[in-house]
Amino acid sequence: MNDEDLMGLAVAAAKQAGVATWRNPQVGAVVVKNGHVLATGHTQPYGGPHAERDALSQLAPEQAAGATLYVTLEPCNHYGKQPPCTQLIIDSGIQRVVVAQLDPHALVTGKGVAALRHHGIEVVTGLGTQQAAQVNPHYNFFYRHHRPWVTLKQAVSLDGRVSAGPGQRTTITNQAVYRRVHKERAGFQGIVIGSTTAIVDDPTLVPTPQLAHLPIRIVLDRRGRLADYPDRQLFRDGLAPTWVFTERKSLPDRLGPRARVFVLPDCSVPAVVQVLAEEGVQSLYVEGGPTIQNAFARAGLVEEVLTYLSPVMLGQEGVPGFAPPKTWKFQDQQLELLGNNVRIAERERQDV
Amino acid sequence: MNDEDLMGLAVAAAKQAGVATWRNPQVGAVVVKNGHVLATGHTQPYGGPHAERDALSQLAPEQAAGATLYVTLEPCNHYGKQPPCTQLIIDSGIQRVVVAQLDPHALVTGKGVAALRHHGIEVVTGLGTQQAAQVNPHYNFFYRHHRPWVTLKQAVSLDGRVSAGPGQRTTITNQAVYRRVHKERAGFQGIVIGSTTAIVDDPTLVPTPQLAHLPIRIVLDRRGRLADYPDRQLFRDGLAPTWVFTERKSLPDRLGPRARVFVLPDCSVPAVVQVLAEEGVQSLYVEGGPTIQNAFARAGLVEEVLTYLSPVMLGQEGVPGFAPPKTWKFQDQQLELLGNNVRIAERERQDV
Repeated sequence: MNDEDLMGLAVAAAKQAGVATWRNPQVGAVVVKNGHVLATGHTQPYGGPHAERDALSQLAPEQAAGATLYVTLEPCNHYGKQPPCTQLIIDSGIQRVVVAQLDPHALVTGKGVAALRHHGIEVVTGLGTQQAAQVNPHYNFFYRHHRPWVTLKQAVSLDGRVSAGPGQRTTITNQAVYRRVHKERAGFQGIVIGSTTAIVDDPTLVPTPQLAHLPIRIVLDRRGRLADYPDRQLFRDGLAPTWVFTERKSLPDRLGPRARVFVLPDCSVPAVVQVLAEEGVQSLYVEGGPTIQNAFARAGLVEEVLTYLSPVMLGQEGVPGFAPPKTWKFQDQQLELLGNNVRIAERERQDV
Repeated sequence: MNDEDLMGLAVAAAKQAGVATWRNPQVGAVVVKNGHVLATGHTQPYGGPHAERDALSQLAPEQAAGATLYVTLEPCNHYGKQPPCTQLIIDSGIQRVVVAQLDPHALVTGKGVAALRHHGIEVVTGLGTQQAAQVNPHYNFFYRHHRPWVTLKQAVSLDGRVSAGPGQRTTITNQAVYRRVHKERAGFQGIVIGSTTAIVDDPTLVPTPQLAHLPIRIVLDRRGRLADYPDRQLFRDGLAPTWVFTERKSLPDRLGPRARVFVLPDCSVPAVVQVLAEEGVQSLYVEGGPTIQNAFARAGLVEEVLTYLSPVMLGQEGVPGFAPPKTWKFQDQQLELLGNNVRIAERERQDV
């Protein structure tokens, strides 16, 4: 196997890491010596070892010495939850490191590579970069643009409605969509809804797989209407953090310890997104309703539109779904049939 | 092969007939003797031989004598464009006839079977009835309900719009849809549009395959706006008949020989459909716009909704597509991906 093939193995290993890495990127590592793959590793759940450590921990010191390490992301060179991987690599006697993607964090890009080279290790970069980057779209976007990746997710009828009428909770999509959405939520760090959705639908928004780090339930409630609804599941179930953004100064007192309330002088979508960026939230799954989604679209803060379409027609009294201010063409469209429903994932920009 | 298998062959033969049979049903016939299939036939283009004659014409008299005939629709017992098939069958010495579907025309149902039995031929009915009926949904519907089968066809964006703004011609769907729609039009006897579509889009509405009997282009123009647009392609190209329904008495003079103009005191959808039924039009493909489609839906005259969905978003200034007065659930839904577009065919009632 050549360098490309071996990096392909590392990318496959990265994907094994899964959403449990939470705010850490999903990284894969492969150790090779004399043409033999000696170990494969990937990022462990948040707080645990990184991919390089996971792979190297499987080897005796004499095995790692003189070997080549294929790693999908530049090894870290700073102390976080784990000691720096560069030091581990240097200590292990690895002779050559092939890196797919440099760290997207502008302040650390290239520092891991430089540290390795400084210690006489041969470093090859630029191999399989795109495939490796695609494993962590949210992480990369967050560190490049300093704000969360936003996916608008909507469930609409064939006549473009999201409910049969104002204030009505309407199940539109099928069980296959229900399962997919639950799985999908786990891949985001925040799930955003508006106060109307919280009041009318009373959702829990918790993904089915019980993870150590569930997405934060984020409710945009400019006027503070939730003061009258402290009994919503989001405030009672204790399953995951609930954050509320409002302009109403009395809301924190009204909700008490049930939620973390951010009182902003201007509770616009850009202001909320800025706070979330400062809080380190890398990705948002904006579930609606249409008012919230329209606000995200008007602010130009949407990276992906995810539509679950059911071929029912809700009729003229139904509430129209999200529609952008102007015609919106997408570059990257993936369509998938889920029984009698359709999943449509679209992006305006491909390379972010 | 048993009776079911042989009727299956006849159904397959029926489908071979294709849309060229026009107002005649697509029928298949198989002649079998001593377990051998001697001949297979199907309805020839409109005005030509029926399936029974097509099959029997391939055989010498001694071959047909004593054979069994499998036919998907009850043989006709009256003079039309062709002499009655019952007489042909009796004359040919066929001993046994297996019929899948009785003639749906209430006035003639059972008469063909009775004529054969009267001449001592053994007749079996009720075999493969459903499969055979599905070959001619429009024909069956027309003779059972005495009005044309109506398919609403729409091309919509993901946000449920049919154009980017009032009066704007907008191409929404892709080339695969374009080809499919052209093919599909050939299967209907009338294509219905409103005057706005005629004026703004200026379509020809002619299916690509050049048939002897093209669908009639039918324009609903209650107020007679087309008086000012005699240059539209529908009136100039001479490719297919163009019929206009209006309440404006001067419209026939204004359009001259370019179109057949029906002036009705009440140009409502039910009134138009009744005239079309009297004219023997068995099926309508209602292409829009939304005003016309909403009127068909309100009148309860829709058998099928056919949606071509493109995952573009036309935005809030776009013209909303058809939406029924109330929530509309469908029993029979067929979804198909056509590149990045989706074809959704739905029916409220399955058994019509």
